[in-house]
Amino acid sequence: MTHSTLIEKLNWRYATKKMDPSKAVPQEKVDQIVEAIRMAPTSSGTQPFELFVITNPEIRAAIQPHAWNQAQITEGSHLLVFAAWDNYSADRIDAVTQQMTDERGEIPMLNQYYDNLKATYLPREEQVNHDHAARQAYIALGFALAAAAELDVDSTPMEGFDPAKVDEILNLKERGLRSVLLLPLGYRQEGADWLLPMKKVRKAHKSFVTEIA
Amino acid sequence: MTHSTLIEKLNWRYATKKMDPSKAVPQEKVDQIVEAIRMAPTSSGTQPFELFVITNPEIRAAIQPHAWNQAQITEGSHLLVFAAWDNYSADRIDAVTQQMTDERGEIPMLNQYYDNLKATYLPREEQVNHDHAARQAYIALGFALAAAAELDVDSTPMEGFDPAKVDEILNLKERGLRSVLLLPLGYRQEGADWLLPMKKVRKAHKSFVTEIA
Repeated sequence: MTHSTLIEKLNWRYATKKMDPSKAVPQEKVDQIVEAIRMAPTSSGTQPFELFVITNPEIRAAIQPHAWNQAQITEGSHLLVFAAWDNYSADRIDAVTQQMTDERGEIPMLNQYYDNLKATYLPREEQVNHDHAARQAYIALGFALAAAAELDVDSTPMEGFDPAKVDEILNLKERGLRSVLLLPLGYRQEGADWLLPMKKVRKAHKSFVTEIA
Repeated sequence: MTHSTLIEKLNWRYATKKMDPSKAVPQEKVDQIVEAIRMAPTSSGTQPFELFVITNPEIRAAIQPHAWNQAQITEGSHLLVFAAWDNYSADRIDAVTQQMTDERGEIPMLNQYYDNLKATYLPREEQVNHDHAARQAYIALGFALAAAAELDVDSTPMEGFDPAKVDEILNLKERGLRSVLLLPLGYRQEGADWLLPMKKVRKAHKSFVTEIA
């Protein structure tokens, strides 16, 4: 099988453990990674999360101890924080419907669709809705990782942090958001990263994929 | 900003509503999309989901009524089903540790890491663990969508289906799996897809991204 460029890049990427603090990711590349995140599809097009792009060193240093002191948070040049909606609300869904109507024109089917969506989502527990919103951010994380790799930018996806502390530092609660993912961007420090020389380990195709023909 | 090829492709893709049943995705392209999924990073490298690649027409027809009768399930040429682990278990985590040891050699830190992981995961409720496993499949969905777009293959990510019914059709319960995402692959039918001529709607950068410099 001839591998596409993207597959080669997905092999090249890894969860970088040691970034070189002397190298910053150029703004143009960060912009493209952010654009990939913005383009990611989400359930019913709600885009139920927001993105924080943090270069401020003090804010990143404040977050670091709540994420197992992982060095990439301050040794990378940018920290992306994916923050999902705490809940679905009529206002939030109406804003989605409004934007679609503004950009595509009035479509009766569309209004009916989002009315049904509200009837389903709004009575549900907040945690169920937040979990659903959070999953959408994970699709966008996939896009971010792929876009970073395509641009030869290193990154380290992180779930291991104390969301309540990060929410506090970024004042997310007031905005109805909860942090779900961190993604430092930067450049690997060759020779200093214990993970870099190690083989990428993935399950064999046969134990991961079942074909039903 | 000069857009990368990938960003252009992410703009090109959309949740295809009408696929051309006369066009099949070549096996080589399906293989690359599957490979992108297999390469996707997951929490602690556990890859806590499996992938089903279904071409069988009867099985796809059986799934269709449990997914709002969406036509792409049978009009596409391949249906991917992402099925997440129902729970974490000592056996499943030990298999991950074993494979890493086999491929990277014995690393004491690694064993300690996965012992800690078991101490965290195993006492948790099954639903919490399944939800966590499911999120990892969403990262891989992002990789699949990006890889398909790069290869000019259309796809339609779907959450809207009855997982219990799909699990039954694919005998997932016996394998400790639960279906979380469907992804038909195929080719858009130009002129017959109501969504294709419509503008792609995404939140404006300023209402989606916060920069903290």
